[in-house]
Amino acid sequence: MNAVQKSLASTPERISAAQRPPLPDEAASTAAPPGPSIDTWLLTRLRSFLGDPPVEFAVFGQALVGPADVPAVARVTFANRRTLMSILADPPLRFGDAYSDGSVAIDGDLVSLLETIYHSGAAGKSDSFLRRATGALRRPHRNTLSGSRDNIHHHYDIGNEFYSLWLGNTMAYTCAYYPTPAAGLDEAQVAKMDHVCRKLRLKSGESVVEAGCGWGVLALHMARHYGVRVRAFNISREQVAYARERAAREGLGGQVEYVLDDYRNISGHYDAFVSIGMLEHVGVANYAELGNVVQRTLNGRGRGLVHSIGRNQPAPLQPWIERRIFPGAYPPSLGEMMGIFEPWNLSVLDVENLRLHYAQTLRDWLARYEAASERVRVMFDEKFVRMWRLYLAGSVAAFTTGTLQLFQVLFAPGESNDVPLTRAHLYAP
Amino acid sequence: MNAVQKSLASTPERISAAQRPPLPDEAASTAAPPGPSIDTWLLTRLRSFLGDPPVEFAVFGQALVGPADVPAVARVTFANRRTLMSILADPPLRFGDAYSDGSVAIDGDLVSLLETIYHSGAAGKSDSFLRRATGALRRPHRNTLSGSRDNIHHHYDIGNEFYSLWLGNTMAYTCAYYPTPAAGLDEAQVAKMDHVCRKLRLKSGESVVEAGCGWGVLALHMARHYGVRVRAFNISREQVAYARERAAREGLGGQVEYVLDDYRNISGHYDAFVSIGMLEHVGVANYAELGNVVQRTLNGRGRGLVHSIGRNQPAPLQPWIERRIFPGAYPPSLGEMMGIFEPWNLSVLDVENLRLHYAQTLRDWLARYEAASERVRVMFDEKFVRMWRLYLAGSVAAFTTGTLQLFQVLFAPGESNDVPLTRAHLYAP
Repeated sequence: MNAVQKSLASTPERISAAQRPPLPDEAASTAAPPGPSIDTWLLTRLRSFLGDPPVEFAVFGQALVGPADVPAVARVTFANRRTLMSILADPPLRFGDAYSDGSVAIDGDLVSLLETIYHSGAAGKSDSFLRRATGALRRPHRNTLSGSRDNIHHHYDIGNEFYSLWLGNTMAYTCAYYPTPAAGLDEAQVAKMDHVCRKLRLKSGESVVEAGCGWGVLALHMARHYGVRVRAFNISREQVAYARERAAREGLGGQVEYVLDDYRNISGHYDAFVSIGMLEHVGVANYAELGNVVQRTLNGRGRGLVHSIGRNQPAPLQPWIERRIFPGAYPPSLGEMMGIFEPWNLSVLDVENLRLHYAQTLRDWLARYEAASERVRVMFDEKFVRMWRLYLAGSVAAFTTGTLQLFQVLFAPGESNDVPLTRAHLYAP
Repeated sequence: MNAVQKSLASTPERISAAQRPPLPDEAASTAAPPGPSIDTWLLTRLRSFLGDPPVEFAVFGQALVGPADVPAVARVTFANRRTLMSILADPPLRFGDAYSDGSVAIDGDLVSLLETIYHSGAAGKSDSFLRRATGALRRPHRNTLSGSRDNIHHHYDIGNEFYSLWLGNTMAYTCAYYPTPAAGLDEAQVAKMDHVCRKLRLKSGESVVEAGCGWGVLALHMARHYGVRVRAFNISREQVAYARERAAREGLGGQVEYVLDDYRNISGHYDAFVSIGMLEHVGVANYAELGNVVQRTLNGRGRGLVHSIGRNQPAPLQPWIERRIFPGAYPPSLGEMMGIFEPWNLSVLDVENLRLHYAQTLRDWLARYEAASERVRVMFDEKFVRMWRLYLAGSVAAFTTGTLQLFQVLFAPGESNDVPLTRAHLYAP
């Protein structure tokens, strides 16, 4: 805890503007509203902008506003008025920066706070204003071939050791599948891989192409347990190096090939196409091209599955996440996802929304991350620790509140009748 | 069999243009191409337009073209050149009319013939031309409040007795669900209703609103087996009269209310919204309004399910079907269906494509229809018998070839976390 955080951790008095002398700035300002202090007025504006959630907001040592009649879920304290003013100019982007650099402190559970704010914003009338003010006008980082490389490098190449601290044994960095609420993270990641393989109805001897393979665990799982050959594409150098080393160590180098290249350069024909957690980085403008890759890869037969974070309605990614965590990322609505399939004769067979599974996955990651936070601080610094904590906690909240969805879309070439009659085989013991 | 059909049933000789003297028309025409006769040339053009399917086409007593190197699936014989010319001017519309009035005869299995033509067209380059030439410029009958009444009356009010000849005991006129390929029609219709009720997770004492209830069987099934109250809307007078009488006879009048009104006039709040096979008649322009009805009906909680014929890609309904069978109907792509949900905060939980189930349902209907065709002829006339045979056989072919899809979309208000973790409960014994 640094000095600012220590000072913020102490609880400010609840100050009524009427009970205290004006602050220097307030006295000097001719624009000061009568009655409450500037700080109180600004905090009230902020709280109103957020839909008046049951949350206390404070400027350290100066002012505090909160719900009148219900208990507050948490308290957000700004180090000073400058911090508050900076955030008010662009809350969705600057709140995250201020939290990261320690000029905002949270008393209470971070996930609960963010869930409350998401709920309040979704229910309130400020939604379209929020969107207009903060998201729609920002242009995400472009996903050209070189743009994608830069964007992916930014997030995925910050160190395999860092990710290994909290992703669990599988190193799967995508939504797990919890057959029961009591399942653990590793069990749920393995269950996710089996769920995907069952949906794809993989048979021994078949060939699979994977677009965006992370640290390579799905390809290994498919090869080991389903007897298929896999070519797995990824543009993250660190991930591909890790995956190749792992495949060799596990004796699966003959069945699995990791290719350091863009999905747009996939060639050849395969029995199955799979992409888990890459679509978020593709960009809507490139969906038809992705569909074309799928179409020519499957060549009128076989099966495919795309697994992606999504939305109920088209909207840009939370801007702080897009700027600081995932440049170029965009979670599409299901309608937008159809831009992959509908330009081609690809037939959607099954869509499953696994939103609550991603909330649980992120809770499991967050718990491991917190347990390893001292090591993360040594690897990076306190700002990094706080930045990633906010990202993980905010992601939990986004999935529990329905701000984000997780869509698994199974499909086949439209002319193929090699489709199962029912989905009962997915749930057979 | 009328006189024309009797004459068509005799097999014409395979005539090579080089082996026979010119026909009168041919000799008189200055536009006659050298070599093959006009009839042969026209038949060749038609076959090419259809993507050169392995089908023989003949003008009775005059000419015959067909595949050179593979056996023909069936033979299509036009009574005379006038019939052929008329069809060539607008094949997708006029072929159906000519088949209905008996001036086209089919030797071979009608379903196999139509599947072959669908396959050939989908694979061939003529697809976009076909679509441009026949569909896209036609404006379907509009689904205003009064337009919908007229459109629905046209199809559904032609006599409950007629439909009872071939729909089976349930009188369900929508895609069934075959738990196994050996299931019969009635069993599969009951399984479909249970599949829908399980997806909706109906609990005793809950309330359900149904938009477009056909002859009312789903509402009765829900009331009897799941203990819910149902208000079911329908604008077909004959269907509502039938449903009310049936509910009273089965002692369920207290739990089920049939309302002769448009879905747009649904009021009140319910635990579940269900619509099976109505969306085809709604029209894309009204999807957002349907979503608004759903949104205000569920009021932030509960579950909903929409079941509809669909497409892999946006395209107009086959024009003969739209003109003669289903005025105002349009099967949407999944992307178009999202126009119901995405304007509102409705979250898609599960999409299942039951295309092959509809093919089987239609095969079962067609078999019963053929068995009852003498009675249909007495009720209507031979033209009607042939028209409905073509419609049912063509629909089988549309689903087996992937020209049409069947989407069941389960959804919930976006802010509700009352969603199941997995779909295993759908497949529990």
